[in-house]
Amino acid sequence: MRYYIGDLKNHVGQIVELKGWVYNSRSSGKVKFVELRDGTGMVSCVFFRGECKESALEIFEKLSQECSVKITGIVRKHPKHENVYEIGAQNLEIIGASVDYPISPKEHGVDFLMENRHLWIRSKKQMAALRVRHELIKAIRDFFDGRGFTLTDAPIFTPSACEGTTNLFETKYFDEKMYLSQSGQLYMEATAAALGKVYCFGPTFRAEKSKTRRHLIEFWMVEPEVAFNDMYDNMDLAEEFVEYLVQRSLANCAEELRVLERDLSKLQPVKRPFPRLHYREAVDMILKENPQFKAGDDFGAPDEAIVSAKFDRPVFVHHFPAAVKAFYMKEDPKDPGYAMGSDLLASEGFGEIIGGGQREDNLEILHKKIHEHGLKEEDFKWYLDLRRYGTFQHSGFGLGLERTVAWICGLPHVRETIPFPRLYGRSYP
Amino acid sequence: MRYYIGDLKNHVGQIVELKGWVYNSRSSGKVKFVELRDGTGMVSCVFFRGECKESALEIFEKLSQECSVKITGIVRKHPKHENVYEIGAQNLEIIGASVDYPISPKEHGVDFLMENRHLWIRSKKQMAALRVRHELIKAIRDFFDGRGFTLTDAPIFTPSACEGTTNLFETKYFDEKMYLSQSGQLYMEATAAALGKVYCFGPTFRAEKSKTRRHLIEFWMVEPEVAFNDMYDNMDLAEEFVEYLVQRSLANCAEELRVLERDLSKLQPVKRPFPRLHYREAVDMILKENPQFKAGDDFGAPDEAIVSAKFDRPVFVHHFPAAVKAFYMKEDPKDPGYAMGSDLLASEGFGEIIGGGQREDNLEILHKKIHEHGLKEEDFKWYLDLRRYGTFQHSGFGLGLERTVAWICGLPHVRETIPFPRLYGRSYP
Repeated sequence: MRYYIGDLKNHVGQIVELKGWVYNSRSSGKVKFVELRDGTGMVSCVFFRGECKESALEIFEKLSQECSVKITGIVRKHPKHENVYEIGAQNLEIIGASVDYPISPKEHGVDFLMENRHLWIRSKKQMAALRVRHELIKAIRDFFDGRGFTLTDAPIFTPSACEGTTNLFETKYFDEKMYLSQSGQLYMEATAAALGKVYCFGPTFRAEKSKTRRHLIEFWMVEPEVAFNDMYDNMDLAEEFVEYLVQRSLANCAEELRVLERDLSKLQPVKRPFPRLHYREAVDMILKENPQFKAGDDFGAPDEAIVSAKFDRPVFVHHFPAAVKAFYMKEDPKDPGYAMGSDLLASEGFGEIIGGGQREDNLEILHKKIHEHGLKEEDFKWYLDLRRYGTFQHSGFGLGLERTVAWICGLPHVRETIPFPRLYGRSYP
Repeated sequence: MRYYIGDLKNHVGQIVELKGWVYNSRSSGKVKFVELRDGTGMVSCVFFRGECKESALEIFEKLSQECSVKITGIVRKHPKHENVYEIGAQNLEIIGASVDYPISPKEHGVDFLMENRHLWIRSKKQMAALRVRHELIKAIRDFFDGRGFTLTDAPIFTPSACEGTTNLFETKYFDEKMYLSQSGQLYMEATAAALGKVYCFGPTFRAEKSKTRRHLIEFWMVEPEVAFNDMYDNMDLAEEFVEYLVQRSLANCAEELRVLERDLSKLQPVKRPFPRLHYREAVDMILKENPQFKAGDDFGAPDEAIVSAKFDRPVFVHHFPAAVKAFYMKEDPKDPGYAMGSDLLASEGFGEIIGGGQREDNLEILHKKIHEHGLKEEDFKWYLDLRRYGTFQHSGFGLGLERTVAWICGLPHVRETIPFPRLYGRSYP
């Protein structure tokens, strides 16, 4: 029988053996305490002379931060706090020593912590953020799986560059040149024609030489695509999805969000419907506070912040100028020059977390767009086939996982939202 | 209101509008049939003169394989078959034409089908295999999530080569040289020390210049790692896991396995306990049929087939010679020269689907192994830290998704188990 700290409520009054790591230890008069962690939770193990073996008290003196131990004792309800348990320790063994553990409770610089990321993840806030990430990934998959979507993962090795090669990692694939995927979308358009409602969810890569708090070189993105959806269906889906993610995090990650000191009142209002602004409306808002902004341009992070600050929940901006959007986005025949897509800006200035829209489904127009964007038609032979054989209206979007984790956790930088971040200038450990 | 073929049972007697693709169409006397697919299923749409619009009959003559259409009609129970529905069609519109669709019901060569993979996935067997893949991925995640594991995905960009660089894809990461991950295991050992029970599940890469039916260049692998598990706990976990995957596929993918003509009697016996052979026992079996085999060597595919043919369910082979296994595998102090790991061979000659075991947790021995394997100590600085600060017994394994899909579907080649396979000599579409 293996016992875990997270299960202690089921073992009150029983003697259990726990294995884990020493988060903290201290003496107070005749009592000694070990704060033990095992990945499922933390528990105070209380050593009283007379209640525990004499040898345990000697071994206690050799404990240090993060040494691994085996502690045997009886499970008790905490005398004061509801739903808190403690161990009346009887015995203590050291499994693995830990001499001069580098991360102490004192403040460390970010570079130092990132260099020791393999150890930093053992601290309370980092574990909490990783648990929220886990819950969000599960929520993302449950959302789509529960609505009849089929997961059809896109390849990482891609032969052509769908939006130019500037931000692409090039790699040798035996004797060929290939790229690491920066989006699975084009492939999802193909699988949507087979399976109707599909999504992919995997790592994607952007070789951006920028050090911002919102960019990772390697990040996870979920990309649903739905046959016969238009751009408005697509916004409906995105908004239902984001509401689900936030409300489920509030329901299932209360303890983690408490550890992260998240202000929950900022997340509670994230419910449908989200406001929807035409690009022109958003530009009017931006110009009032940033007169330098040029109508027709894409938004920068400060522009997004101006718009999102006006609302207590995420806000859609739709109908961006077609010229600033990708070649595959459908131009609105009723609103020429503007694309049938939308970005979703998270609240509190966390910026864009979703981009998507309706895809160009007309073969001739798509041909023309590919040429206008200076792309090579032969790179898109298979993609054009989707318009040659039973073309269909379809829409989809991509949600960046790490930005969403950062927003929900209230973390100022995406580097703490993934176990081992890859940033410009950071590739270890 | 959007209607899907998969939901028709809830709409008997109602008029519905369906959008999808023409799988087949034929006339028989006064009746015309369209076999329509929309990703959720297939349905026969029956056109009777008098019952449908006259124009629908004219449009019917223009239908071709894979053109996209809108069909309106009334949902009826099939006159003969239980749980089958049909559409009494009233109207028909063509959305997108499909002239000379390249994949006809006649036989095509594999190269041709692979070149047209973006269209090939629309055929019944391919869709069925992709749906089984979807269900298996969900089953894998549900298994671990339901047992208290935390998903901690490993990075794809890895700075060091954990088992030599022979089969690694090298790539430029700005000014550095990095590799594409071939396993997340080392990182899982770090997260296991934080979160106890962890797993990663993402794409991995092996630059193998081999064209076999069991190798993909890019494949998905799930890798659980459990703090304080030994090699026997690890086999217990693997066997519970594989039983779960197979029995859940049988329960949830009956229709897909029927389309794939899978012999279910080969999957039904896959229940715990699985046989467990010491390497020496397995070698004795192999030598009877393959006298060329040299005791001490790793197994080839034919050797695995000899062993697995003896059992009606997967079989573990444990305690391989330490010399043929990776540096991080713990050598058994009670059985010197042999490693505390095991491979799991799938039944029916499908070969190894799991490899794993107990990791070396002693700092000095691990140091020595790294040198013996000609690896550079500085590449493993962070990995050695896990033995420096609270070292702990731990074990884990990796299961290859595509081999498992191939086995469960009874597919002879892994290329049909992933939407867009990457093989030696195949990187398109």
